[in-house]
Amino acid sequence: MGRDRMTLLDRARNHEITEEIRCVAEAEGIDAEKLRRLVASGRVVIPGNICSRAAPVGIGECMRTRINANVGTSVDFADVGKEIEKARVAVRYGADAVMDLSTGGDPDAVLGGVLDAVSAPVGTVPIYRAVCSSTPLPDVTSDDLFNAVRSHAERGVDFMTVHAGVNRHVIDCLIESGRIMNVVSRGGALTIAWMLHHDCENPFYAEYDYLLEIAREYDVTLSLGDGMRPGCIADASDPAMFAEVVALGRLVRRARAAGVQCMVEGPGHVPMDDIEPGVRTMKQICDFAPLYLLGPLVTDIAPGYDHITGAIGGAIAGMYGADFLCMVTPAEHLALPTSDDIREGTIVTKIAAHAIDLVKPGVRERAFAQDRAMALARKHLDWDAQFECAINGERARSIHEARGSGSDACSMCGELCAIEVMKRALEGRE
Amino acid sequence: MGRDRMTLLDRARNHEITEEIRCVAEAEGIDAEKLRRLVASGRVVIPGNICSRAAPVGIGECMRTRINANVGTSVDFADVGKEIEKARVAVRYGADAVMDLSTGGDPDAVLGGVLDAVSAPVGTVPIYRAVCSSTPLPDVTSDDLFNAVRSHAERGVDFMTVHAGVNRHVIDCLIESGRIMNVVSRGGALTIAWMLHHDCENPFYAEYDYLLEIAREYDVTLSLGDGMRPGCIADASDPAMFAEVVALGRLVRRARAAGVQCMVEGPGHVPMDDIEPGVRTMKQICDFAPLYLLGPLVTDIAPGYDHITGAIGGAIAGMYGADFLCMVTPAEHLALPTSDDIREGTIVTKIAAHAIDLVKPGVRERAFAQDRAMALARKHLDWDAQFECAINGERARSIHEARGSGSDACSMCGELCAIEVMKRALEGRE
Repeated sequence: MGRDRMTLLDRARNHEITEEIRCVAEAEGIDAEKLRRLVASGRVVIPGNICSRAAPVGIGECMRTRINANVGTSVDFADVGKEIEKARVAVRYGADAVMDLSTGGDPDAVLGGVLDAVSAPVGTVPIYRAVCSSTPLPDVTSDDLFNAVRSHAERGVDFMTVHAGVNRHVIDCLIESGRIMNVVSRGGALTIAWMLHHDCENPFYAEYDYLLEIAREYDVTLSLGDGMRPGCIADASDPAMFAEVVALGRLVRRARAAGVQCMVEGPGHVPMDDIEPGVRTMKQICDFAPLYLLGPLVTDIAPGYDHITGAIGGAIAGMYGADFLCMVTPAEHLALPTSDDIREGTIVTKIAAHAIDLVKPGVRERAFAQDRAMALARKHLDWDAQFECAINGERARSIHEARGSGSDACSMCGELCAIEVMKRALEGRE
Repeated sequence: MGRDRMTLLDRARNHEITEEIRCVAEAEGIDAEKLRRLVASGRVVIPGNICSRAAPVGIGECMRTRINANVGTSVDFADVGKEIEKARVAVRYGADAVMDLSTGGDPDAVLGGVLDAVSAPVGTVPIYRAVCSSTPLPDVTSDDLFNAVRSHAERGVDFMTVHAGVNRHVIDCLIESGRIMNVVSRGGALTIAWMLHHDCENPFYAEYDYLLEIAREYDVTLSLGDGMRPGCIADASDPAMFAEVVALGRLVRRARAAGVQCMVEGPGHVPMDDIEPGVRTMKQICDFAPLYLLGPLVTDIAPGYDHITGAIGGAIAGMYGADFLCMVTPAEHLALPTSDDIREGTIVTKIAAHAIDLVKPGVRERAFAQDRAMALARKHLDWDAQFECAINGERARSIHEARGSGSDACSMCGELCAIEVMKRALEGRE
């Protein structure tokens, strides 16, 4: 059952510097043997299905902070072409990975299109496939769930979110918790609904070894979903969430023992001062598996701006160990995002990721070169060089040129530009 | 010289609960005697010129995090009406104070218009007035500088930024520092240029007692400017900056001794992991004077998005003690902002301020009520209530309605909405 073929994790443990490891080490500018050890320990993952067409991307310690963009149809908006276009937009503006979360129309067509359209690793949430078929949720069987995983693995999906930590004990904690929002993870809610309807344990938890077999066979990286992520500030950091983290930590160890790479997903809506303890605890309990965060959103009251509440929380989380940020768009909580929303969400998340990289051990020196280049361009009022260094140079240029100055500086200060004033004042003194 | 009239600080120390203190205590929902003690200690300021028409606003410990919007003409764009309109827009979207930084056209007309247009406290940087008159900088006298302060005080300005900490010692530290960007504070650069040209000490430092006399006479709150704020990540947290902080701490104590309220301004461009130590040090050295921050911007490479880099840095700074955030707009580093830029900058800064309030001692319980109301509205999929709770309900509604769902939920999930799925699954169990 797939035990014949060694996974990337097996090979790294076997002291082999694989092609993927060599490629990522070169892209990150770090020593390949050091990266091999990080992969072998599970602190870095390089998602890559055996059928993958993706350029390898490293996620975890000493890697630049990576960002993921979610695309996919919903029941209300099911245009296949538009979702494939969103995946292209996300990658063009800096997404390192794309998840196809399609739940409407023809999800298989979207997944195929996304896999063809981008060279970034692609992820999915297989339970969506199971419940979006014509079968109503109560009639979905445990086999259907695993078949969805297998089907996506066969298609070449590189990483998959599976809510394997949502077990009966965690649901008991949830019911006792008195949360306002209960569960806001769609995959988590579907998993729980299935469990409660059938009055049985979560198949992904109960038959986790079977899940690992499929993952091994295709060398799929598991992303252990956080079904208990808090959906509002009031629900943050409660026992239900940490009960699931404890479960996820055990699943991490079992995945690694089976030679399967895995990441752990994190919350959600979290007030700023809970982020550091939360991230440190998740990292510790889950043996420093790469941490993949949605947000955290640092307030509930900014719909329309949740790409920003997410960037604030994500940046703080990254400072304390988050490795992989899931883009949040301005449409979060409101609607399926447009391509423009995906672009803005991607750029803003990229900004948070770069701010993290400026303080991330093993990464900061490399990240800093970009800021230094921008500082020099500014010092010389070299506008083209500034746009060249910018995360979104087009945008910067259009703002600058729409309200140009009669001076070499910008129209905020004109000839009173502090840089120019100081240049004249310090002439001959420096 | 103005010693006859007691300032707000004098009166608070005299155990008087003034009308301003009563009014702010009520608005903040805290005990008036507690607020009186905070004002008396200098940990809270309530800026208010004796001729002020402003509704009093408290800034500092136990106060909600306040935000300021900068408006004002430049040499390139000098339309008086547009700047007054920007002040109105800023206040409409949540600015608690407005600074008029006009340097072009008819700055007096803008200041008069802004003072008439908004009931928020108004601040200025008087050195701009002195150097924007027809007199070239070398011919500006020390008297001209103080006259600019007096002129703004007479007009009713409530708080003023004066770069009194930029003394010869600080300039020596700057010249030794080898910074890339030197000085990016416009007022700081003008002050230094004046000092170097005349080869003499900073008049606002050398004759600080005279400055305090004028401030006392009109009960103007001083905002001690950070001329050394770093202009890029590479220049952050250097000796020049901390030399100025030490100078500002001494000036804080002298202001308080003279019965003059004061705040301290802070940087600038700062990598995330320097923010906590920087803010804690500034607070400590400056005897816990309210800290007024521009940014900090957590990376240099996002022109066009610096309202966001500033919101990330401002939110972190607020978690460690910053009290007053200066809005940054998307046009920062690029152009004089438009009204739309001011609106976006204000909203995003307001989001950061609210995220801070959710973790700020003495404030968090009050701030939390808004998030709880939003969570309840979301739980019930009550869209009108959600838009009511939102920082910008118009924006949220327009995104929601532009891509509506056939279900009660939003078009992201439709009938697979986690809230709905859980509601059905948990029926009878909670």
